[in-house]
Amino acid sequence: MSLFRLLVTMGDVAGIGPEIIARGWPELVRRCAPIVVGDPSWMQRGVQTTGIVARVQTVGHADEARAEPGVIPLLAPSAQDLTRVQPGRVSAEAGRAAYDFLCRAIDLTLARHADGIVTAPLHKEGLRAAGLPYPGHTEILAERTRTTEFAMVLYGRGLAVAHVTLHMALRDVFRDLSPDAVFEKIRLLDQLVPQVLNRPAQLGIAALNPHASDGGLFGDEEDSLIRPAVEMAQRAGIAASGPWPADTLFVRAQRGEFNGIIAMYHDQGHIAMKLRCGWDLVNISAGLPIVRTSVAHGTAYDIAGHGTADAGSLIAAADAAAKLARFSKGRNAA
Amino acid sequence: MSLFRLLVTMGDVAGIGPEIIARGWPELVRRCAPIVVGDPSWMQRGVQTTGIVARVQTVGHADEARAEPGVIPLLAPSAQDLTRVQPGRVSAEAGRAAYDFLCRAIDLTLARHADGIVTAPLHKEGLRAAGLPYPGHTEILAERTRTTEFAMVLYGRGLAVAHVTLHMALRDVFRDLSPDAVFEKIRLLDQLVPQVLNRPAQLGIAALNPHASDGGLFGDEEDSLIRPAVEMAQRAGIAASGPWPADTLFVRAQRGEFNGIIAMYHDQGHIAMKLRCGWDLVNISAGLPIVRTSVAHGTAYDIAGHGTADAGSLIAAADAAAKLARFSKGRNAA
Repeated sequence: MSLFRLLVTMGDVAGIGPEIIARGWPELVRRCAPIVVGDPSWMQRGVQTTGIVARVQTVGHADEARAEPGVIPLLAPSAQDLTRVQPGRVSAEAGRAAYDFLCRAIDLTLARHADGIVTAPLHKEGLRAAGLPYPGHTEILAERTRTTEFAMVLYGRGLAVAHVTLHMALRDVFRDLSPDAVFEKIRLLDQLVPQVLNRPAQLGIAALNPHASDGGLFGDEEDSLIRPAVEMAQRAGIAASGPWPADTLFVRAQRGEFNGIIAMYHDQGHIAMKLRCGWDLVNISAGLPIVRTSVAHGTAYDIAGHGTADAGSLIAAADAAAKLARFSKGRNAA
Repeated sequence: MSLFRLLVTMGDVAGIGPEIIARGWPELVRRCAPIVVGDPSWMQRGVQTTGIVARVQTVGHADEARAEPGVIPLLAPSAQDLTRVQPGRVSAEAGRAAYDFLCRAIDLTLARHADGIVTAPLHKEGLRAAGLPYPGHTEILAERTRTTEFAMVLYGRGLAVAHVTLHMALRDVFRDLSPDAVFEKIRLLDQLVPQVLNRPAQLGIAALNPHASDGGLFGDEEDSLIRPAVEMAQRAGIAASGPWPADTLFVRAQRGEFNGIIAMYHDQGHIAMKLRCGWDLVNISAGLPIVRTSVAHGTAYDIAGHGTADAGSLIAAADAAAKLARFSKGRNAA
């Protein structure tokens, strides 16, 4: 059985990207046919830092790549000089290179030269230093694939959580919530869950206010915004219920009542999922025309270059991408 | 060694209060000298439902009570007729009785006839039906003990979380946050943590916005409201730091970096603590002149009377109250 070809972008080379790719390599090659998109010298540093036995093989085209436990094929699309970048330091060079790696991976995947992308972390300050003011991967992916309806999903241990709002002040969440916005994320999550879990979605929609507003005592967004979206979903045949008080919703999911949750804001989903999943947590972009998963942690500049970083989230991200790629292939063939 | 005398209020008799007291009784008498404040017939029902072997002994005064594994001493301060109350149904009678139980427990504890109170859940709709529009226990306790500075703390598995705002719409949180409000809760938690954990407090203060606003990109409350409170605390010699992104703060506490967290709003603390603590979770009122702990769950009307409810949170609440009572005794003696 041939494995799916996944492009593993190195992210910001001053972060833990190179070393988690190296440390995870023996597991990655069991799950997919990985090709690193990054910088060969920094990949070599990652190999040395972690002490794995493998050589880095720069290839000119994805089709030339043959991943093996002892061979790390690498595409090097960036013209940036990264020789003066320091581990753990923000630089415009590393920021620009991370963007170059990602753009090449997107283009190759859109052109069907690969089945999906798994991203190591980039650093927003690095992007900004390079004059690229994106909050993160997701926004670059959406723009470059011309996608307007997408969702940032955290996934781990049998549960997927999509966020209606993401990188914004808590004060601004109220402005961006609407029945349509909530319904859009319900629809995207309903499509995603069966692909990663091999079973029908059972979605719980979180309330915004404590105790789901306790019948209107503390806020009204449950009745005015969230319930209408749940009803739209139910009319569309989606197994969704709520709005449920957020604090007990995650406990109910933990007990098996739900395998998907719609969170109204960033921390609502992130607090629960980081606590319950640890290194098994994965970030999935739902709604893109290509498969893309990511580690769910940052560049960890404070430990970058020490060789101590855990590759668990990267391996879990490759697992998830391989699952999603099966469906993507099927969809493209249909 | 004599055990601390704790008053265990029955809460709303139509909920799981009677049965968790009965089920937990063998463990409660090992941890304290408990006296139930409730209704004798409903206590008898709780005993029968759970199948424990014990008789209910109504006493006229706390000093007459002798708790034993086979004897449940009970004070019956309510004049309500509870014979027609149904398990799992809201009623004004059960609501008023729950209020009567609590008031008597507060008065006895204020008068030093008991060392503290452990409360079973009451039902807000029952209170309302009885013309008592309190959101919950805490507000009744604060009013009756004439306390203005108090905090609702969730405690379990080595971590205590105090909430700056609690039962209000998320939209209103911004109005109630201030450096003084945050500092007040820091001070209360700093006093509480050593009493329940026997070690100095190490407090992490949560941010309000995702990524702690990422340097001001998503909101400004971290700089304008929270950081000043943290600095006030540090100047007062309190081991507090932050504001930290809330999603990683709970993970860091899990790893041992903090034993106390200040949450800015209800769900921020409740999502994390309900997920990590399960039945070990306890609610503690910090800042009252008396010791008071509580189960961290509700009346569970859906399973009330079935005899299946878990007494874990009640037992953990008694544990915590007994620890706090040591300090309360010391403070009163000093």
